[in-house]
Amino acid sequence: MSASPFDHPFLGGLFGGSYTGPLFTAQEDFAAMLRFEAALAEAEAAEGLIPREAANAIKRATVEYVPDAEKLRAGTARDGVVVPSLLDGLRDLLPADQRPHLHYGATSQDAIDTSLALRLKKTSDHLVYGINELVGRLAALETRDGTLEVMAHTRMQAAIPVPAARKIHSWRDPLERHCARLERLRPEIEILHLGGAAGTRDKLGSKGPAIAARMAKALDLNLVPHARHSERDGIAEFAALLSLVTGSLGKFGQDVALMAQTEMAEISLATGGGSSAMPHKKNPVQAEILVSLARFNATLLPGMHHALVHENERSGAAWTLEWMLLPQMVMATDAALRTGTELASSITFAPRKR
Amino acid sequence: MSASPFDHPFLGGLFGGSYTGPLFTAQEDFAAMLRFEAALAEAEAAEGLIPREAANAIKRATVEYVPDAEKLRAGTARDGVVVPSLLDGLRDLLPADQRPHLHYGATSQDAIDTSLALRLKKTSDHLVYGINELVGRLAALETRDGTLEVMAHTRMQAAIPVPAARKIHSWRDPLERHCARLERLRPEIEILHLGGAAGTRDKLGSKGPAIAARMAKALDLNLVPHARHSERDGIAEFAALLSLVTGSLGKFGQDVALMAQTEMAEISLATGGGSSAMPHKKNPVQAEILVSLARFNATLLPGMHHALVHENERSGAAWTLEWMLLPQMVMATDAALRTGTELASSITFAPRKR
Amino acid sequence: MSASPFDHPFLGGLFGGSYTGPLFTAQEDFAAMLRFEAALAEAEAAEGLIPREAANAIKRATVEYVPDAEKLRAGTARDGVVVPSLLDGLRDLLPADQRPHLHYGATSQDAIDTSLALRLKKTSDHLVYGINELVGRLAALETRDGTLEVMAHTRMQAAIPVPAARKIHSWRDPLERHCARLERLRPEIEILHLGGAAGTRDKLGSKGPAIAARMAKALDLNLVPHARHSERDGIAEFAALLSLVTGSLGKFGQDVALMAQTEMAEISLATGGGSSAMPHKKNPVQAEILVSLARFNATLLPGMHHALVHENERSGAAWTLEWMLLPQMVMATDAALRTGTELASSITFAPRKR
Amino acid sequence: MSASPFDHPFLGGLFGGSYTGPLFTAQEDFAAMLRFEAALAEAEAAEGLIPREAANAIKRATVEYVPDAEKLRAGTARDGVVVPSLLDGLRDLLPADQRPHLHYGATSQDAIDTSLALRLKKTSDHLVYGINELVGRLAALETRDGTLEVMAHTRMQAAIPVPAARKIHSWRDPLERHCARLERLRPEIEILHLGGAAGTRDKLGSKGPAIAARMAKALDLNLVPHARHSERDGIAEFAALLSLVTGSLGKFGQDVALMAQTEMAEISLATGGGSSAMPHKKNPVQAEILVSLARFNATLLPGMHHALVHENERSGAAWTLEWMLLPQMVMATDAALRTGTELASSITFAPRKR
Repeated sequence: MSASPFDHPFLGGLFGGSYTGPLFTAQEDFAAMLRFEAALAEAEAAEGLIPREAANAIKRATVEYVPDAEKLRAGTARDGVVVPSLLDGLRDLLPADQRPHLHYGATSQDAIDTSLALRLKKTSDHLVYGINELVGRLAALETRDGTLEVMAHTRMQAAIPVPAARKIHSWRDPLERHCARLERLRPEIEILHLGGAAGTRDKLGSKGPAIAARMAKALDLNLVPHARHSERDGIAEFAALLSLVTGSLGKFGQDVALMAQTEMAEISLATGGGSSAMPHKKNPVQAEILVSLARFNATLLPGMHHALVHENERSGAAWTLEWMLLPQMVMATDAALRTGTELASSITFAPRKR
Repeated sequence: MSASPFDHPFLGGLFGGSYTGPLFTAQEDFAAMLRFEAALAEAEAAEGLIPREAANAIKRATVEYVPDAEKLRAGTARDGVVVPSLLDGLRDLLPADQRPHLHYGATSQDAIDTSLALRLKKTSDHLVYGINELVGRLAALETRDGTLEVMAHTRMQAAIPVPAARKIHSWRDPLERHCARLERLRPEIEILHLGGAAGTRDKLGSKGPAIAARMAKALDLNLVPHARHSERDGIAEFAALLSLVTGSLGKFGQDVALMAQTEMAEISLATGGGSSAMPHKKNPVQAEILVSLARFNATLLPGMHHALVHENERSGAAWTLEWMLLPQMVMATDAALRTGTELASSITFAPRKR
Repeated sequence: MSASPFDHPFLGGLFGGSYTGPLFTAQEDFAAMLRFEAALAEAEAAEGLIPREAANAIKRATVEYVPDAEKLRAGTARDGVVVPSLLDGLRDLLPADQRPHLHYGATSQDAIDTSLALRLKKTSDHLVYGINELVGRLAALETRDGTLEVMAHTRMQAAIPVPAARKIHSWRDPLERHCARLERLRPEIEILHLGGAAGTRDKLGSKGPAIAARMAKALDLNLVPHARHSERDGIAEFAALLSLVTGSLGKFGQDVALMAQTEMAEISLATGGGSSAMPHKKNPVQAEILVSLARFNATLLPGMHHALVHENERSGAAWTLEWMLLPQMVMATDAALRTGTELASSITFAPRKR
Repeated sequence: MSASPFDHPFLGGLFGGSYTGPLFTAQEDFAAMLRFEAALAEAEAAEGLIPREAANAIKRATVEYVPDAEKLRAGTARDGVVVPSLLDGLRDLLPADQRPHLHYGATSQDAIDTSLALRLKKTSDHLVYGINELVGRLAALETRDGTLEVMAHTRMQAAIPVPAARKIHSWRDPLERHCARLERLRPEIEILHLGGAAGTRDKLGSKGPAIAARMAKALDLNLVPHARHSERDGIAEFAALLSLVTGSLGKFGQDVALMAQTEMAEISLATGGGSSAMPHKKNPVQAEILVSLARFNATLLPGMHHALVHENERSGAAWTLEWMLLPQMVMATDAALRTGTELASSITFAPRKR
């Protein structure tokens, strides 16, 4: 199926290859969840909560585990989450007497949210790289064309001439601010999630903090004092940051599309899209795609905020909504950065016609 | 990749199999676009606008055509739409002298929007079937449990006892109205799109209406006087109807989840989801999924309405946004109908404890 | 205060005077709720459910009633709805022995939703008038300028010349379809709401249907078999229709703004906005406002669809959200029609420069 | 009129009095814009760009200025912004030879965006106070009831007993994080906006930086190197923060409403709403309002992100959309903090029935 354009055989071409796409495959998700289970077992053994042999067996099982796609899918349909079925599969790889020690004191949400945290860490590393690359291209564009005069436009009317650098700053400066925003919010999402059934680590007793500390260190995630199962603000804040990035890139795209209008010709594009009906056409496809991606993320963002109304200690309704939206918002941002970078590399400001 | 949960190997299990999913594959889209091209050629030959041999060759090519995935993806990246590349591939199957007659007088948007119309026709047939099936299950539920007394709740507080039929009507009656709404709006979306480069059928001259009439008949689509390339209201209305369906089903799910609360126990579920941490749990997963699907469609809907601001004769920015959203809205509705039907089949009202 | 731009002393100027604004004042709301109470009493007396003297006293009280703003505001803060406090005020005007007959068998939601139905009826009458007026202006524009040649633009690039009529149709035809849509959906919202505490008319016994029939006739509203307290689809459908209207007008505004660009000059505006910094400016303010109004309604629309998840027999959370959004959506549509009509009267297509 | 519930005579009661409401009146807006004009004149005189007498006359005029509501409203309707008309009124108070020095080198957007910055500064001060007050009440609640046992619920089913402190942390901790987020983002919105016609301070020549520095100091706003007329990310980030606050409070409200269900009775409310039909009712109105406010802000937020696509050097369409949404988002947050504080003061955890 191709519900999403990012997965579509030909529409996906609009959005380029994707570094972040693989981060949201079932495969990557399992890998991260298995890292969680292994780290949990190791920390619990180190703290004497489970036998050392159990931890060793569990860690071995996480390496040997091969997902049974059918069972996992059926299990998710029944339970709402994949973890019980994944644990069943791990249990099959364990000696009977070690099985009770698997996932001891944890809950599905710990594995799922920690998996997301690990993958969002990689995502953010990539976004920072992508933003910096684009900022660099815009800097190069400014170096080359910045002193050219272009016509500023306000309220869709010619205003006064300005240097091209004026426009380029309005594209570039927000991206630098987004990078700073991302760095500030990362500590709130790259966290270990360990709360147990209702977030109180009830089964870990006095060893809870020590186990959490060991796991955070092993997984290179931050440690927070309380589990945040029902506190979705970190994720919602991250989603808004994604939309800020695509929004700023949408303005860049919209500006280029306007400047590239046939009658405006203030910017020329090295490449452009053709038409099936009009051979003379050279369409600013990438510029338009940036606008689509901006509006796409602005559209999906509120769902992540509605998901803040996450009732009680775990809400299936609110939580599932996040899974339906966040991966696509990441991929849209990834696509926008890549498209923006290509666009910034392909535009040339034209000397203004007087 | 699995940007969308509908395409996800295990999360997709939450949403069941899908009749409508296949309608949004590249394969189905091509099949429909090729039907358009064949019907166009046939109608043009019948009206003497292109040679009969050309029409025959084109029709043959549409049958023989095998998509070159790489080229189509690259072409879409460059042109913003797949049609120019698809036509390149068809041209390769035609004698050189017949090539100018392919896609004569049409534009990419005619093929793409007509393809969507054909697939939305099948979609709507399926939705009507699905709504009626669910309405039937709710009717059966009312027949069996309708006279049982349940506690009505207003503002999250016990109000007065009512027959279960009261609640069941509030789930069922909107669905019947949605069916009627769908039937009323279908004529505005199951239309032939034929406008040429800028919607004026400029190349078809006086034969435009006759060609359109033949094509509409051949494709079993409605005929409208003017091309609606930049008039997206039919599609936006359809998207709102999808959200009405999932919204009503979200209320059904929310009501079931509330009635199935441990302390409420007004409804029992034949099946329920298990927990990795709490063996006693029987979670109302399907009920919660209905709420997620409702909020998912409510979230995506505004994007389809922002897309109404479709500038000039064709907007790449606004149009692309539709492709990023509509298929998922359809699949969410499909999933909600299926999940709702299963839920309606698995709930039993419990006699009210006094 | 001026939370909303429609109520703002100077920003309100952007949106013109308002026919529909007064429909959403407390005053109009009370007037409609009092009509409900009077019609209820009259129908109940006619059916022998309450004494004739009680009905007369109640009807007299509804005419004499003067709202105590302080009490009503405090009562709403406490109860979530104004009706209990309004009824307290009415009771004060009744002889003690008639008081039990006031609002007999009804609930707050009956009065509030019926009041909304009555005011939406007037709203829709006005919208139909406004749409037809604008359609007329666009028809006049087509008569005068329709044969002038303008450059069609696709994907922000010059395409081929087309008659101005092509563009004008794309503005006008959707409006005619919206009028038809509005007429089709009005029967589902211009309905009497009478359900009593939990929607089952429990206190009206066998006289429920007759009382409802009398009331519907008296209030000139449609009769529906079951109360729809928790079924918000009619309202959500109406909200989507509002967004379709403003969306289509947003495209009109966007097209004009693009054609009025200094460098494009395909359209000239009789009036335009000035700038504090650039005396040469003549800004297409009305055209831009149409885009703002389109995106405003597209933004508010999903809230009305989230409100479909209206749990149980009455949800304070979902229902209140409707009151926070719907009036503004109406006023935005009213403003868009008025602004669109002025704009259509002030634009002149310029002969195309070759 | 009462487009917005915040301005409504009785519905406004749901949202309490408002500190922030007055910040969005025309009066407060003018006061701030006049401060801008006075500071601009003073800084320009100090830098020798305008005569000292002109600055004195301008400052005097800003004190004497009395808005002509009619003219300002008509001017806004024509120009899209109020500033040209406001400047006309100020000019009338100046000697003819000083008039050219008013608003010298500035543009409407400088005054309007700086006015917003000044008022958002007061807004944020108030929000910080409000958040801290609520956090304090929740801390008191935890001190009093924290050790009581309540039933945790996951996926709408009883899970395991937890201390009430567990729930209270999930309400309180996000609020503390929001406070920290607000403090981090304030520097990006409490900035002086001074760019002139197209953001390049073209008329201020070499004195631009010095004039900006003086103004920033006088107005107690931050100095940024480039005008950010078309860079709306600071504002969009602030809007998302507002939605984070209301979202977290929506979860609080939803939790209370669920715990206060008649059958649950885990929490009792000191006050509750009555019903016109059911005297036994004690509705958790405030808890429900918190959910409405959460979904309200989540609904309006995307409009502020769509406004990031702010084309060229000034977009009337995108900018106007901000004015239509942001004040209400502030008032919703204000209302949620106040309502949340009252709710936190009125709930008592009940000892769990075993």
